[in-house]
Amino acid sequence: MTFNFISAQENEQIAEKIIAMEKAALERWTHGDPSGYVEIYSKDIVYFDPSLEKRIDGLEILSEYYEQARGKVYAERFELVNPVVQTDGKMAVLTFNYQSFNSEIIRKWNCTEVYRLEDDGNWKICQSHWSLTQPFKSE
Amino acid sequence: MTFNFISAQENEQIAEKIIAMEKAALERWTHGDPSGYVEIYSKDIVYFDPSLEKRIDGLEILSEYYEQARGKVYAERFELVNPVVQTDGKMAVLTFNYQSFNSEIIRKWNCTEVYRLEDDGNWKICQSHWSLTQPFKSE
Repeated sequence: MTFNFISAQENEQIAEKIIAMEKAALERWTHGDPSGYVEIYSKDIVYFDPSLEKRIDGLEILSEYYEQARGKVYAERFELVNPVVQTDGKMAVLTFNYQSFNSEIIRKWNCTEVYRLEDDGNWKICQSHWSLTQPFKSE
Repeated sequence: MTFNFISAQENEQIAEKIIAMEKAALERWTHGDPSGYVEIYSKDIVYFDPSLEKRIDGLEILSEYYEQARGKVYAERFELVNPVVQTDGKMAVLTFNYQSFNSEIIRKWNCTEVYRLEDDGNWKICQSHWSLTQPFKSE
């Protein structure tokens, strides 16, 4: 990283925290519980996934959308492949290739999460973009 | 926006600047010139699009990848649908639904660009995520 707003040490601390938050939310998500994400989404979150006609804006609508997934998602395990965090200390961009494993099925995604340090001192996700890795190739 | 790090006026000024930069790069992109983007990508850019097996890291590899597209992309016109910019003054997250028009074909994409204010005072894109809108539905 050649990004100079914050020290390498501070960058590393934020990266560890952000990645741990993402893994904790995914742990719940892959066991049917969308609340792990909903609890760390900001009020003004903007959100993309491959099933949507257009971006979802705002926590209220996104919470309703996620509620529909409750109990319907399961994965035996998942991996964040090569996560990178770029941060200025107040916003932190986490990108990774995601793989979830279930029996013999591997699902592959691209993911960008933007975390933001809120006024109360908590990091929340203000932008989430999930897309399929190579959607037109067989998995 | 309830985001308090900067004033609403400063937020608006940054949003206008970022959206204008994106449109200028797209104007060149839709006429076969990838350099409009390459010139505003940061050295440490991370990049996703639907044709990739995994994230591309760094300007050097991304420049080579974009060079392959030179002269091959054309659209009569394009639209950024409902662009939103979330910023803390040093990083700015631009999201929009993108539509490009060519004869009777409309192509639809989801896009997240993270711009960052560099030490030299210029904004550059440090994260770019393009994905297809509803890839499994017909357009």
